Amino acid sequence: MSALQGPVVPTPDALAALRPLPADAVRLTPDGLLGAWQERNAASTLPHCVTRLSTHGNLDNLRRVTGDSDTAFTGFWFADTDVHKTLEAAFWSGTQQAFVEEAAALLEKAQDADGYLDSYYQDPEHRTRQWTELHFSHEMYTAGHLIQAAVAAARSAPDDPVAQQVVSVARRFADLLVQRYGQSRETDGHPEIETALAELYRVTGHRPYLDLAARFLDNRGHQVLGPGRFGPAYYQDHQPLRETDEVTGHVVRQLYLLAGAVDVAVETGDRELLAVTERLWDSALDSRTYITGGQGSRHRDEAYGDAYELPPDRAYAETCAAIASFQLGWRLLLATGKVKYADEMERVLYNAIAASTAVDGTAFFYSTPLQRRTGHDGGGENAPGHRLDWYECACCPPNLARLMASLHTYAATGDDNGLQLHLYADGTVAAGGHTVTVQTRYPWDEEITVTVTSPSDQPWTLSLRIPAWCPDARLAVNGTPAPSRDQVKDGYLRLHRIWHPGDRIVLTLTMPVRLVAAHPRVDAVRGAAALTRGPLVHCLEHADLPTSGPLAGALFEDLELDPAAPAAVAYHGSGLAPVTLRVGVRLRAASGGPLYRDLNRTIPPPAATTTVTAIPYFLWANREPGPMRVWIPLAPREE
Amino acid sequence: MSALQGPVVPTPDALAALRPLPADAVRLTPDGLLGAWQERNAASTLPHCVTRLSTHGNLDNLRRVTGDSDTAFTGFWFADTDVHKTLEAAFWSGTQQAFVEEAAALLEKAQDADGYLDSYYQDPEHRTRQWTELHFSHEMYTAGHLIQAAVAAARSAPDDPVAQQVVSVARRFADLLVQRYGQSRETDGHPEIETALAELYRVTGHRPYLDLAARFLDNRGHQVLGPGRFGPAYYQDHQPLRETDEVTGHVVRQLYLLAGAVDVAVETGDRELLAVTERLWDSALDSRTYITGGQGSRHRDEAYGDAYELPPDRAYAETCAAIASFQLGWRLLLATGKVKYADEMERVLYNAIAASTAVDGTAFFYSTPLQRRTGHDGGGENAPGHRLDWYECACCPPNLARLMASLHTYAATGDDNGLQLHLYADGTVAAGGHTVTVQTRYPWDEEITVTVTSPSDQPWTLSLRIPAWCPDARLAVNGTPAPSRDQVKDGYLRLHRIWHPGDRIVLTLTMPVRLVAAHPRVDAVRGAAALTRGPLVHCLEHADLPTSGPLAGALFEDLELDPAAPAAVAYHGSGLAPVTLRVGVRLRAASGGPLYRDLNRTIPPPAATTTVTAIPYFLWANREPGPMRVWIPLAPREE
Repeated sequence: MSALQGPVVPTPDALAALRPLPADAVRLTPDGLLGAWQERNAASTLPHCVTRLSTHGNLDNLRRVTGDSDTAFTGFWFADTDVHKTLEAAFWSGTQQAFVEEAAALLEKAQDADGYLDSYYQDPEHRTRQWTELHFSHEMYTAGHLIQAAVAAARSAPDDPVAQQVVSVARRFADLLVQRYGQSRETDGHPEIETALAELYRVTGHRPYLDLAARFLDNRGHQVLGPGRFGPAYYQDHQPLRETDEVTGHVVRQLYLLAGAVDVAVETGDRELLAVTERLWDSALDSRTYITGGQGSRHRDEAYGDAYELPPDRAYAETCAAIASFQLGWRLLLATGKVKYADEMERVLYNAIAASTAVDGTAFFYSTPLQRRTGHDGGGENAPGHRLDWYECACCPPNLARLMASLHTYAATGDDNGLQLHLYADGTVAAGGHTVTVQTRYPWDEEITVTVTSPSDQPWTLSLRIPAWCPDARLAVNGTPAPSRDQVKDGYLRLHRIWHPGDRIVLTLTMPVRLVAAHPRVDAVRGAAALTRGPLVHCLEHADLPTSGPLAGALFEDLELDPAAPAAVAYHGSGLAPVTLRVGVRLRAASGGPLYRDLNRTIPPPAATTTVTAIPYFLWANREPGPMRVWIPLAPREE
Repeated sequence: MSALQGPVVPTPDALAALRPLPADAVRLTPDGLLGAWQERNAASTLPHCVTRLSTHGNLDNLRRVTGDSDTAFTGFWFADTDVHKTLEAAFWSGTQQAFVEEAAALLEKAQDADGYLDSYYQDPEHRTRQWTELHFSHEMYTAGHLIQAAVAAARSAPDDPVAQQVVSVARRFADLLVQRYGQSRETDGHPEIETALAELYRVTGHRPYLDLAARFLDNRGHQVLGPGRFGPAYYQDHQPLRETDEVTGHVVRQLYLLAGAVDVAVETGDRELLAVTERLWDSALDSRTYITGGQGSRHRDEAYGDAYELPPDRAYAETCAAIASFQLGWRLLLATGKVKYADEMERVLYNAIAASTAVDGTAFFYSTPLQRRTGHDGGGENAPGHRLDWYECACCPPNLARLMASLHTYAATGDDNGLQLHLYADGTVAAGGHTVTVQTRYPWDEEITVTVTSPSDQPWTLSLRIPAWCPDARLAVNGTPAPSRDQVKDGYLRLHRIWHPGDRIVLTLTMPVRLVAAHPRVDAVRGAAALTRGPLVHCLEHADLPTSGPLAGALFEDLELDPAAPAAVAYHGSGLAPVTLRVGVRLRAASGGPLYRDLNRTIPPPAATTTVTAIPYFLWANREPGPMRVWIPLAPREE
């Protein structure tokens, strides 16, 4: 039996600072938050997705091609990708066998003799448009997600005939692409095929897949896609990637493209291309990323917008963009070993990604804004202030399902020389011959206990990430406090020794409450602060406002953070949020009045002050709908 | 020969506090700003529009219907409205006779036997869709603009056969609507027909037009249009207008609808409906209007957005919405006589509307944002940071042309009992038997000299608007200072006496520089101030930044307003902006750094302070493209 593997497995010759572990090397327990999310995904989100593929017509779209359904084509023209992503999730999770078998058989039956498979463009009415409108058609994007499902199949169930069936279908489509576009100057309007082909190369060793991925990257940026509705920068076709300094345009397109570029760069040893992807990642993080890790400031074209244009209320911050950021971060972490990529994976995971799913796992945000006002007008939105159980463009839910199903594979890296822990979660980790148990209630609790469970007579290095947000990491080994600062190198605490079973490392990542301000160029949140603790961004939500006392009946928007009242941590021990924050707020006295006034007109002193609860951002909108805000206006200091 | 009239002429029995003057009662001289704009419109903007109708295919669309062209239909499906609005502008301006004759003949020839006229839906490929998709088709919106052109024809050239030809065409279409929809429960997705039919009733006295307008108003609000892409509130179909408390949805639709509602209310004596329009106007002004008078915060659905959601950078603030606000304000001013409507007309005219046109009159903003950042990404915008000479959806330029061509008619009202001056401009005004000359360089200058030129042996009242922004209005009559405050009633200085030729009233509207703050609920401009003087909002523009000295090479976004340096007025005497402001600014020292930081981390003191020019907002983007801002961050006060 072959070794099980997860997403992103660079070949042995690839540029790589870190190596992913086998897919079964990390096991998360549901006692930890990541393990609980993974369990919820298998128990609720993934079955929900499988059901929706039937009720929303995605499977029937394919059955129309096979002649087994005569209903009309339903949904967006790339609706097949919801099937592919759900299939990928099912492979990673090892569940939903009946769906897997049904989908695999259906895809095989629907595939054209030449390998083409796209139920929208196989429709007799659309067939003549095949390959004629690449800027728009998503045909290769759809092929890419089919291939990703096949990659998951090959890595998670290498000996399973059904998995092999999916791999065969995907390879036939990939072979068609190689045959058709191997010498072409064209490319697809929505990236995804690049990373998919590179991964398929990794699975199959078939070099033409990698070459085609590299070709698509190079074809892009020469205005081969036309102006479209939003201009060539919308799909990163305005200039060659290698000449680009700033992320731009449609966020998911940009991030999927960069993921493909990293894959190609590391497999071809192209350090220049790898540097380009790092430069673009920096440009996103320096000026175009929300404090939640979300990216994308504009609704109209789902795009980045200008540098420092980060409105909390109109944050588009698409869930798929957050997932894409996580996937890109992992690729860059593997390639470079730089801690900043792991830090960002953590931020986006615990905030933008986590917020997208309801606590019951069956409702989702498409867009993850950082503010909702009283009386919010959700018309024209993809997220009307509360999570929906599905979307007409349902890219996000199955994307969440495939990420969560493979979440454990992103927690650690390693090889015979050691083990690197990047995301802390209750569970067990094995790398090379080394195994450890991780016990922690992180991110609620500051303490992480790592117990070695494998014997060794050779020294090896246990590396523990020290997040950039942590002001003071404390270490104890076998009960003895140890100086931690000296041993932190490049963001990781490196403990090199001969480890014995039972050796016990206790890492304490102190989590003071932080009041955070944005760069002064971020106009949208000037004069406001956000509350964070550890990796968690917090928010005020209407449901936590007192219904009696001085704030009773207050308009949510009239609350200001009281800078004179320090925020405190409230430990609850259990529940959805075992730890919340308590913050002092003031209610502005004069809440009405004209929209514009003389600057020097005296503002009345605050009418009331009190203390309210701030909850982790990712848990908002799990009670009755109402206003929320991450960035809280700062009350003027009293003179 | 009949009396010439302008837009909006309530019948004698209508509810009306003020009466519009005949169209030739006000003459503006090009020495004043309004007169100069009107002259520029006739000399540049309107001819430009006429040319574009040929080069962009609008006339050919109609020629396809008549069999005189075989080119493909071009532009949006409501492209006919550009013809109609340009025709309306030509009638108001009394120019472009050749175009008028050509267009009138073409419209008559293109009209179907039953009166239908819409070149998109007369196309053989689209004909079966006539009247089947009212939520989307704009058929009545197009009819409405045809009718508005006919109203202008009837009022500006009542004895001209070509004008009568246009009136006949429009009436045939209106009669078709009455026949088809007189008992219907349907309505059009884009309001305009309501005000058009009410105005056509005023011109013709034909009551069924008014009844149909009233019916369309009542039909709306019962979800007769379906959910559409953005929900029923997008086209104000979510609840009956009479039950509505807040403006919502697509701004131009909302404001055109309200204009029609005022017209119907005053003609039917429906005070309840009039009160509804005032309530909705208040809701827009209290929480959803930019300091420039622009309305509409969202690009995606061209919509209002939430209360207090007023981002300056992403202000959509469509030019047509500003024009609609002006038109609605005029209707409410006539109906109620309340000065606030005239104040708002002035604000939106001198700022949002004025900004939309380049100084040469041949380039236009679709959207009028209040901020453009360095390196602005205009992808996916309708305004990429500079004015364009036309748009694929070219609603705004001909809308500007029709407004400017009739601008003089909005300056004053009156009758035998007196004369009310609302907009101050160099020129002459006649009402009843009373005539005055107005000499002023307003808004550059504070002084307005009104000289009576007509004899009278009866007392009459000269009313002069005292804008709400003015802290101190001074009056002198025939050289003698007179107490002004006592004579101000409801926002107007009321001077009642027997006026003699040569009587000379000098009104001084003092114009201190004001630093203005927004309501604290406007998150997007917290900690920033805007500079105004008189009716003019000002802005900082990159081109005024010094290229030497301490600010050389400074990033525009790193400038802060220095609260310790009072702003001053700079008189230049002549030029495009005879008056600008000089303001103290500081350059933030640490311009780089991380996107998020601890709030209490010390911000370095400012590196440099100096004084720069702030220009009137409406003149921005007439030099090389670059950043601009109305709301300027306030430097922290030094401790």
